[in-house]
Amino acid sequence: MAKSVEFFFDFGSPAAYLAATQIEAVAGEAEVIWRPMLLGGVFKATGNASPVMIPAKGKWLMGDLSRWAKRYGVPLTLPPGFPINTLYLMRGACALEGTDQFHPYVRTVYDAIFGQGRDMSDPAVIAEVLTDAGLDAKAIIAATQDDAVKAKLKSKTEEAVARGAFGAPTMFVGDEMFFGQDRLDFVRDALQN
Amino acid sequence: MAKSVEFFFDFGSPAAYLAATQIEAVAGEAEVIWRPMLLGGVFKATGNASPVMIPAKGKWLMGDLSRWAKRYGVPLTLPPGFPINTLYLMRGACALEGTDQFHPYVRTVYDAIFGQGRDMSDPAVIAEVLTDAGLDAKAIIAATQDDAVKAKLKSKTEEAVARGAFGAPTMFVGDEMFFGQDRLDFVRDALQN
Repeated sequence: MAKSVEFFFDFGSPAAYLAATQIEAVAGEAEVIWRPMLLGGVFKATGNASPVMIPAKGKWLMGDLSRWAKRYGVPLTLPPGFPINTLYLMRGACALEGTDQFHPYVRTVYDAIFGQGRDMSDPAVIAEVLTDAGLDAKAIIAATQDDAVKAKLKSKTEEAVARGAFGAPTMFVGDEMFFGQDRLDFVRDALQN
Repeated sequence: MAKSVEFFFDFGSPAAYLAATQIEAVAGEAEVIWRPMLLGGVFKATGNASPVMIPAKGKWLMGDLSRWAKRYGVPLTLPPGFPINTLYLMRGACALEGTDQFHPYVRTVYDAIFGQGRDMSDPAVIAEVLTDAGLDAKAIIAATQDDAVKAKLKSKTEEAVARGAFGAPTMFVGDEMFFGQDRLDFVRDALQN
C-alpha cells in the first residue's frame, strides 16, 4: 500500500521553507499531501511563539538554519521585516488547492521569501513575483478576499491544532506527528516501515 | 591541534541526558569539557522556558525523545514530578569538578533520572543512588551547602548565558554554538573540520 505524508506549512517559517525543499525527495514514492495552515493561528491557539521571540534563541537560529541550508544545498536568506504576516499568502495557497497552480505557487512564494529575500508583505512585490512566475496574480490576490477561502484557511488551521500541531513544519504519517525540518529522517523512516 | 567541545548540561533536561550518552563518541579523539549549568537560571535570564510549558509541545516531546533514544540505543523514561528541581544535583556536579568522582557522578545521576526514572528530588533516593554507585554521598550532599560551590554554579550559569546559551544541552566548538541533542551531527562536523 502506498503511504503518504501530510505536510503542514506556512510561508512565514524558514524551517518550513527548508523542509519544503526536501520533503518530496524524503517521501520518495510516497505521496506528499501539502496542507496550508496559518502559523499565527496555531501559535495563538497553543500558546506557542516563534523562536525569535527569545532573543538568545533568535540570535542562534539563523546560524543553525544556515548550516541546514548548506547541508541541503539550498539558498537561505531572511526577508525584510521578518517575521512577516502571511495571512494573504496562505489564503492564496488555500485558493489554489486542487489546481495545477498550487505547486508552482508554493515554490514561487517560498523561493521569493527565503531564497531571494523579497518583501512578500508588499502587494506590489507579490503581484510582480507571481506574474513573473506565470501565475494569475490578479485572480489569486482577489481570491484572498473570498469568504470561502478565508473560512478554508481557518478550518485547516483549526484541524492542525486539533491534531496536535504547535509550529511549522508539522508532518503526519498516519497518526504519527513529526515537528520540524530537523525531523525529516524520522519521516523517511516512518514512510519506509 | 587537538580540538575540544564544551558540553553545557543540566540534569533536568532529557535532551541533555540523551546527548550526554553520545557526546564522547561524537567527539572521538577530541576532548569533551563537561560544563555544569543551572537550566532554571538560564531560562530565567533569557526568557526561555521548558518546551513542556506549551502543552501541545509537551505532548509531542516524549514521543520525539523516544525516537531519538531508540536511535541511540539507550533507555529513556521520565522521573516522577518531571520537570524536577536540579539545584542540589548541579551543585554536586560543581563540587566534584576536577576530581575522579565527576564522571561517575554525572553518569550515575543521569542514569538514575532518565534511565531508571528514579525520584532524584528525594534526598533519601539521592543518597541511596550515589552510595550504590560507590560515591561519597554524604560528602557530596554536604558540599551542596558550601558557599563556594553555590557561587561556582551561579558563575558557570552566568557564563553560559553570556556566551549565548538559552537551553540544554548547549555545545561550543570554539566560538560556534550548537543547541540541542539533535545537533550532534553538526558538532561532529565542526570537530572534524
